[in-house]
Amino acid sequence: MAQATARAHSNIALIKYWGKRDSSLNLPAVGSISVTLDALHTTTSVHFSSEWPTDRVELNQAPADEKTTQRVSRFLDIIRQNAHIDERALVSSANNFPTAAGLASSASAFAALSLAASTAAGLSASPAQLSEWARRGSGSAARSIFGGFVEMHKGQRADGRDAIAEPLAAADFWDVRIVIAITSEQAKQTGSTGGMEQSKNSSVYYPAWVDTAEEDLSAMRNALLQKDFTRVGELSEYSCLKMHALALSGQPGLLYWNGVTMDVMHAVRNLRRQGIEAYFTIDAGPQVKVLCLPEHQNTVEEALQQIPGVLRLITTRPGTGAHLLGEKA
Amino acid sequence: MAQATARAHSNIALIKYWGKRDSSLNLPAVGSISVTLDALHTTTSVHFSSEWPTDRVELNQAPADEKTTQRVSRFLDIIRQNAHIDERALVSSANNFPTAAGLASSASAFAALSLAASTAAGLSASPAQLSEWARRGSGSAARSIFGGFVEMHKGQRADGRDAIAEPLAAADFWDVRIVIAITSEQAKQTGSTGGMEQSKNSSVYYPAWVDTAEEDLSAMRNALLQKDFTRVGELSEYSCLKMHALALSGQPGLLYWNGVTMDVMHAVRNLRRQGIEAYFTIDAGPQVKVLCLPEHQNTVEEALQQIPGVLRLITTRPGTGAHLLGEKA
Repeated sequence: MAQATARAHSNIALIKYWGKRDSSLNLPAVGSISVTLDALHTTTSVHFSSEWPTDRVELNQAPADEKTTQRVSRFLDIIRQNAHIDERALVSSANNFPTAAGLASSASAFAALSLAASTAAGLSASPAQLSEWARRGSGSAARSIFGGFVEMHKGQRADGRDAIAEPLAAADFWDVRIVIAITSEQAKQTGSTGGMEQSKNSSVYYPAWVDTAEEDLSAMRNALLQKDFTRVGELSEYSCLKMHALALSGQPGLLYWNGVTMDVMHAVRNLRRQGIEAYFTIDAGPQVKVLCLPEHQNTVEEALQQIPGVLRLITTRPGTGAHLLGEKA
Repeated sequence: MAQATARAHSNIALIKYWGKRDSSLNLPAVGSISVTLDALHTTTSVHFSSEWPTDRVELNQAPADEKTTQRVSRFLDIIRQNAHIDERALVSSANNFPTAAGLASSASAFAALSLAASTAAGLSASPAQLSEWARRGSGSAARSIFGGFVEMHKGQRADGRDAIAEPLAAADFWDVRIVIAITSEQAKQTGSTGGMEQSKNSSVYYPAWVDTAEEDLSAMRNALLQKDFTRVGELSEYSCLKMHALALSGQPGLLYWNGVTMDVMHAVRNLRRQGIEAYFTIDAGPQVKVLCLPEHQNTVEEALQQIPGVLRLITTRPGTGAHLLGEKA
């Protein structure tokens, strides 16, 4: 058997993914469109060996907890099944950003794991196949296989073979900036999966969320095709608030934001009133990602830095897809 | 002609009113249930006289702006039409709390005006009639005609005669406390009427909001009947978040909250985790009203006072309906 090391970048959805049509295969109820983030990445090594009795997982140089180890082990089962192997693995994974705080660590983690594990298992998978596997680990991970702007299809098939991501080539090499305002380093109280299930089961707005998703995807595809930054920003902010509205309307309502999150949202809208095109988007956590054009990056950074409670900023641009850093037999 | 002075208290909706089925008659798309607030009131004097060429309006001892004067004048036209008089009026109105900052000043204002103006015009109207008139001025004003817990019916009739409030007698004399955290003294950017229209016209969640309103009203009626504080609190928080979710999902999404609003929401949920039953509700503005039982009032006040940015607290209990303070020929 072999070892392989891969890196994948995090991503943020501009048109949000929220809700699963099938929990066991992790099939999304709606499609989504994201941008892969250059500055946030996970590097993962996988080493299969017959010497080891169980899978072992290290996260950021420490042993992972049992729940995480089981989740990774179940994921490796998919790879083992495809590669017709039975060896256990040592998985070592490290993020260069805070884990589980709404920066989509599971997206980059399972994209990197998908590539590293399949390569170590001797498979040479297509990006589409990697995306399908990554989705089994985490819905948003399917998008992190690709760089730039990426669309995730909800798919129609019961087996999920068509629930995969693909790059939106028209928006390739579009230099936009994403300024991430970190407002809390704590892990969130309700993860995405639990939050999605709660919205599906208890929000009266859920059917409308699912029924209107295609309109938002279509509008964003067109905006990206035209590189219409204003429209991309407006649609991103709209989809973000529409998703959080869905979460808030559950029983009990989910509050992913903190006070600083809210202050940043108002600051972004104040920038727009001053003629600076900036738009926010927020995943299932308190961090705010602000989209702007390169010429406004400094102004946006200065405005966000002044907000009390903003711990730090990470400014980035569209990043590359998952790639191998090394492999050996 | 005569003069009359009346006082009415503000109210907060526990099951929220949002959306109009008819804008010209101010007919609500959904019913609502509120509690009238003892500590917040408007005192209004109306003096009809043939000596005056136009209606004049004073708000908090200063001349009202033109928009407010026109709104009051249109309201007085309804009273004049009913009383078959043509005299213009001097209206003098004062709130004992900040105007237009989400403490429902228009509710107490139009309830007080309804009683003062009709009395000054020589009418002796039933509470139901006063509620109907008050609604023409402001939808939530229909509820402030009554004390304690009050239900506003959306009504079915095109003329709005059945779109009136009535007291929920079962919940009479139930001593609960409402601790209001003032987080901003500024007037809000988007008023309720504009916000409601925007939600109706642009939110994909609006049909579900309207379609599911009766379930919430029915559940709250039962909870009040049983004086089940936990259920009243849960339903209040649910309806609040459901309404704000609706506003957030418009295009563009309406952010009525500020950072301190959000901090107070989290503090209330933290109190619950510590076993203190406290529940928040928020109208179309940044102030947070926290429901609790009398035995927890001090604990709730202490917790809210510690939040940076909470400017002051107003603690109150259910108040009385609109009543006359004086009249003379």
